[in-house]
Amino acid sequence: MGKGRMETFFDGVLAIIITIMVLEMKVPHGDNIGALYPLLPVVLSYVLSFVYLGIYWNNHHHMLHTTREVTGSMLWANLHLLFWLSLVPFTTAWMGENHFARLPAAVYGFVLLMAAIAYFILQQRIIAAQGEDSLLKKAIGSDWKGRLSPVLYVAAVIVAFAAPWISIGIYVLVALLWLVPDRRIERALAHDGRQP
Amino acid sequence: MGKGRMETFFDGVLAIIITIMVLEMKVPHGDNIGALYPLLPVVLSYVLSFVYLGIYWNNHHHMLHTTREVTGSMLWANLHLLFWLSLVPFTTAWMGENHFARLPAAVYGFVLLMAAIAYFILQQRIIAAQGEDSLLKKAIGSDWKGRLSPVLYVAAVIVAFAAPWISIGIYVLVALLWLVPDRRIERALAHDGRQP
Amino acid sequence: MGKGRMETFFDGVLAIIITIMVLEMKVPHGDNIGALYPLLPVVLSYVLSFVYLGIYWNNHHHMLHTTREVTGSMLWANLHLLFWLSLVPFTTAWMGENHFARLPAAVYGFVLLMAAIAYFILQQRIIAAQGEDSLLKKAIGSDWKGRLSPVLYVAAVIVAFAAPWISIGIYVLVALLWLVPDRRIERALAHDGRQP
Amino acid sequence: MGKGRMETFFDGVLAIIITIMVLEMKVPHGDNIGALYPLLPVVLSYVLSFVYLGIYWNNHHHMLHTTREVTGSMLWANLHLLFWLSLVPFTTAWMGENHFARLPAAVYGFVLLMAAIAYFILQQRIIAAQGEDSLLKKAIGSDWKGRLSPVLYVAAVIVAFAAPWISIGIYVLVALLWLVPDRRIERALAHDGRQP
Repeated sequence: MGKGRMETFFDGVLAIIITIMVLEMKVPHGDNIGALYPLLPVVLSYVLSFVYLGIYWNNHHHMLHTTREVTGSMLWANLHLLFWLSLVPFTTAWMGENHFARLPAAVYGFVLLMAAIAYFILQQRIIAAQGEDSLLKKAIGSDWKGRLSPVLYVAAVIVAFAAPWISIGIYVLVALLWLVPDRRIERALAHDGRQP
Repeated sequence: MGKGRMETFFDGVLAIIITIMVLEMKVPHGDNIGALYPLLPVVLSYVLSFVYLGIYWNNHHHMLHTTREVTGSMLWANLHLLFWLSLVPFTTAWMGENHFARLPAAVYGFVLLMAAIAYFILQQRIIAAQGEDSLLKKAIGSDWKGRLSPVLYVAAVIVAFAAPWISIGIYVLVALLWLVPDRRIERALAHDGRQP
Repeated sequence: MGKGRMETFFDGVLAIIITIMVLEMKVPHGDNIGALYPLLPVVLSYVLSFVYLGIYWNNHHHMLHTTREVTGSMLWANLHLLFWLSLVPFTTAWMGENHFARLPAAVYGFVLLMAAIAYFILQQRIIAAQGEDSLLKKAIGSDWKGRLSPVLYVAAVIVAFAAPWISIGIYVLVALLWLVPDRRIERALAHDGRQP
Repeated sequence: MGKGRMETFFDGVLAIIITIMVLEMKVPHGDNIGALYPLLPVVLSYVLSFVYLGIYWNNHHHMLHTTREVTGSMLWANLHLLFWLSLVPFTTAWMGENHFARLPAAVYGFVLLMAAIAYFILQQRIIAAQGEDSLLKKAIGSDWKGRLSPVLYVAAVIVAFAAPWISIGIYVLVALLWLVPDRRIERALAHDGRQP
């Protein structure tokens, strides 16, 4: 089965997720600067989540470049990932409206953790389907970012109950970690003599 | 007429349906665990509907693999299916917010029933267009799942007025029934010597 | 310029329009049949608009089959059509919530009228680009449906101020008119020896 | 990496942005002409933003015609552009509901300014990737529109605090400036002997 429709569906859902987050930014009633002030944490949450979803889209894009066929289990692993990502607008709005309070900050991290696990499962499904010589396996190498992120999320979730701002700092850190261009897959594809 | 645009449109609408269900999860006002508690039935309804829509997307994906051309009647059968699926966010939210009360649980099942019938009609339109040697007809075989589901939905709708929780159990059961990988179409395509 | 991206964009916007109409169906607070009753006109409006948007999608699909290239003016004519269609969820909800009152019924018809005109303009842009031997021009022939519909919309808008139910009847009539399969374009393409 | 998925994602997000603006037009409660009156500034804001987003879609469409490959930095420049465009429904609704008051009119211009800068960055990324003989660089030439627009936006933002209606006039002017068909890229492609 071709990967086209799976890519399209992922992109479609992600595009909607990324956009409906804005719907949670309720238009303020006043027209002065004071009316914008309570929106600040909402906007900051939005920026953070926008970057996370952008990273997911980018990485998903790259990961699927290493494969051509998709199996039934990949389709479900993909839907599973989308399920957790679809909760991001909810946790983003909850965290923003409560000014980064403890429980919302923890739940925000929990959903990021589950999304990271879902991404890992999808990655494993693709590697398994590619067999011994998996191009994706070579491409991700030690996958230290993929292994470190869940650990950091777990730490952030726990810390949130004591000091939610440290959790936010960790979320920002993980995002920066991934924003640094990652040429692994591009390099592996080039090395393989395949045009990405 | 090529099937591309029909697939794309189905995927587009389904992606939106699946995502706007989250919009129905109203962000709670408090920031403590008590604020999350009333969301529990809403989240459970969301998970159930997410799985159902995932199944529809998966099966639609497979079904269209057996055909290349689409006719005008297929386009309308497709829109008819989308109409019933588009009501799922509404019934999901209503059922969740009323903690699986009788009428909402029955209406939820009614919409699932109509979607199943609409799917069946689309399937018949494709088989009819493929003529005698319909690959899809061979692929679905006795179609026992497709025949059993509507019966179970009808039962669930009736039972809902007495014991809505049994109806929910039936909805979960039907979802599990379909989640079990179904290799019929993949097998038929392979048997036919066609790459899916 | 290829037509692919114009088709995709039209489908994307239409898919969203068709789906957000459901968002206007506010989930009722009660869980009994009385809670559903006020939704009836909203649901009826939704069904009517769903059919209209389905017809537009279908016809747009057929119309673009006659062309391969798109020009800048077609892109804008396409956006213009999308603008009017994007107002349909608004007029649908307004008409439904006011139980088919006079002004909402008239405004509903006005937006349908403007969409019909926008569709006509897009059609003319395509015919103009195809030159003398326009396949689309042959395909639509006298275009009696395309000419009759605006007249009926104008009548319905005027009548709405006296008897809105007659206007609704006219909207249903026009929808039925278009639902009757229209093989003009398919026939013209076949006649032309081109596979649609 | 092929540009297909970047185009699709841009179109998907833009289609949603353009459509959810309508969701901000709250359905009025009355059914008389007085109920529509307060909607007028909202509708006018909507029209203005619809035209702006249409222009962005059109220009993006043309710009990507000059390139085939996309790099990682283009993907992020694209996401950055989408971020600012995603704020347009928010600023549109805020400006409309406050009847073009000072601060909302200024913030509306600020987001347009940031979107223009983001577009410029994406353009530079593509030119840089194309190297010496950049087709896009030739196509945009002096890029006077691209250079003038940010200046006008800055002026409008400042003027908004004194006379917001002049700012609105400037926004309309810039939109008209871009609406005038711009054949630069089409000409450059033709000149280059490439079919757009």
